[in-house]
Amino acid sequence: MNETIQTLLNHRSIRKFQDKALSEQQITTIVDAARFASTSSYLMAYSIIGVTDPNKKAELAAISNQAYIKDNGHFLLFCADFHRHTLHATQEEYQDMLTNLENTEHFLVATIDATLAAQNAAIAAESMGLGICYIGSIRNDIDKVNDLFQLPSHVIPLFGMAIGYPADSPDQKPRLPKTSIYFENEYISDDEHKTQLQKFDASISDYYQTRKENQRIDKWTSQVKQSIANPKRARISTYVKEKLFNKR
Amino acid sequence: MNETIQTLLNHRSIRKFQDKALSEQQITTIVDAARFASTSSYLMAYSIIGVTDPNKKAELAAISNQAYIKDNGHFLLFCADFHRHTLHATQEEYQDMLTNLENTEHFLVATIDATLAAQNAAIAAESMGLGICYIGSIRNDIDKVNDLFQLPSHVIPLFGMAIGYPADSPDQKPRLPKTSIYFENEYISDDEHKTQLQKFDASISDYYQTRKENQRIDKWTSQVKQSIANPKRARISTYVKEKLFNKR
Repeated sequence: MNETIQTLLNHRSIRKFQDKALSEQQITTIVDAARFASTSSYLMAYSIIGVTDPNKKAELAAISNQAYIKDNGHFLLFCADFHRHTLHATQEEYQDMLTNLENTEHFLVATIDATLAAQNAAIAAESMGLGICYIGSIRNDIDKVNDLFQLPSHVIPLFGMAIGYPADSPDQKPRLPKTSIYFENEYISDDEHKTQLQKFDASISDYYQTRKENQRIDKWTSQVKQSIANPKRARISTYVKEKLFNKR
Repeated sequence: MNETIQTLLNHRSIRKFQDKALSEQQITTIVDAARFASTSSYLMAYSIIGVTDPNKKAELAAISNQAYIKDNGHFLLFCADFHRHTLHATQEEYQDMLTNLENTEHFLVATIDATLAAQNAAIAAESMGLGICYIGSIRNDIDKVNDLFQLPSHVIPLFGMAIGYPADSPDQKPRLPKTSIYFENEYISDDEHKTQLQKFDASISDYYQTRKENQRIDKWTSQVKQSIANPKRARISTYVKEKLFNKR
């Protein structure tokens, strides 16, 4: 098994960091790795905002309700971004572009581009011995994040990433097994899905009862039902449309 | 520079493969790498379909209009997937879940989860000396892809990935420079964006005129305008809603 595969298989989210900033060199390497990810139709429809301003970090930590968004080695905000693409268009060309940028296809393209770049950044960081945690909870108050960075139209903050020197070594969280995630040539039946999930529930119960910290009795299917049944970030739908994405 | 960073910075899309299938061991390693990617709220809202059936590969190649979707070492189809999450719910619980699954937040979560997994798969493959190419053009006829794999509600095919032993070594395609993609603490002005893009246009013109194959006169801003101004995959918006995503 090569070093890269080892890094990929060893992932765990780090939520406690040493008080030590990343160097400029480290940040450049991480951003370079992000830049060379694949991109849909060569559109590179994303941007990254590095956040070092303590006030902005504190605001983001409050929105996400997590201290480690403030206390880390560096913080990256990943945005879906078709803004730069519109800047060289005449008024007439802009109108033609707008119609297309407003469909769900282009919302998908920008979301996928930003995420490919982000995962390259994550892996680059982890390969250097740093830890990372994705922060989807910046979407708890997406308008506040938007205002904090004065984001123009066609720019949406999707998620953050806390990076730093780990001050914790949590157990690795189990994943759905290959048989539950990967199928050959056809999608599996509901019965097969259910059988797989029952097995996973049994093993995840063991994990929750025996892990180093926060032991509890729980299973994946219950967690998931609770998580999805509760209204969550309903504002996103309207916000995305206000930014001229996903309107038609 | 460690091996992983070298792999990340060395990426180029491969569109011509040797006639040699991946081994079961290679596929398992690639899928395992995908499984251990980060996932939003532990939801693991994605699935991967490995396609070996020659008829299905030929159909996908026709939809995407690219022979290398048929001729490669293996083909993966990445899907946003909240289907398995609903299977253990009572009718009442399902109704509560449905309301949330239909908002844009959950469409984002599933798209991001699938993309994180995919990029781990891509890097695992590249670290083993294999080449990959993302295939967004399966969305050219998303209904046909849906029917080909009989995908249930809450499952959307997002993109494919052709993987294999490279039979080509294309030049690396330049990327927008760090200054155009990465900002500190605040989003850059339109003037700054334009200055960056003018510089990039100059360097990309050089690339297109001097690369090994398909030399031409072109610049990024013209390409992008043309690409976005032409109607593209307008059907996606409705399809996604029919699959009970992104409805409200």
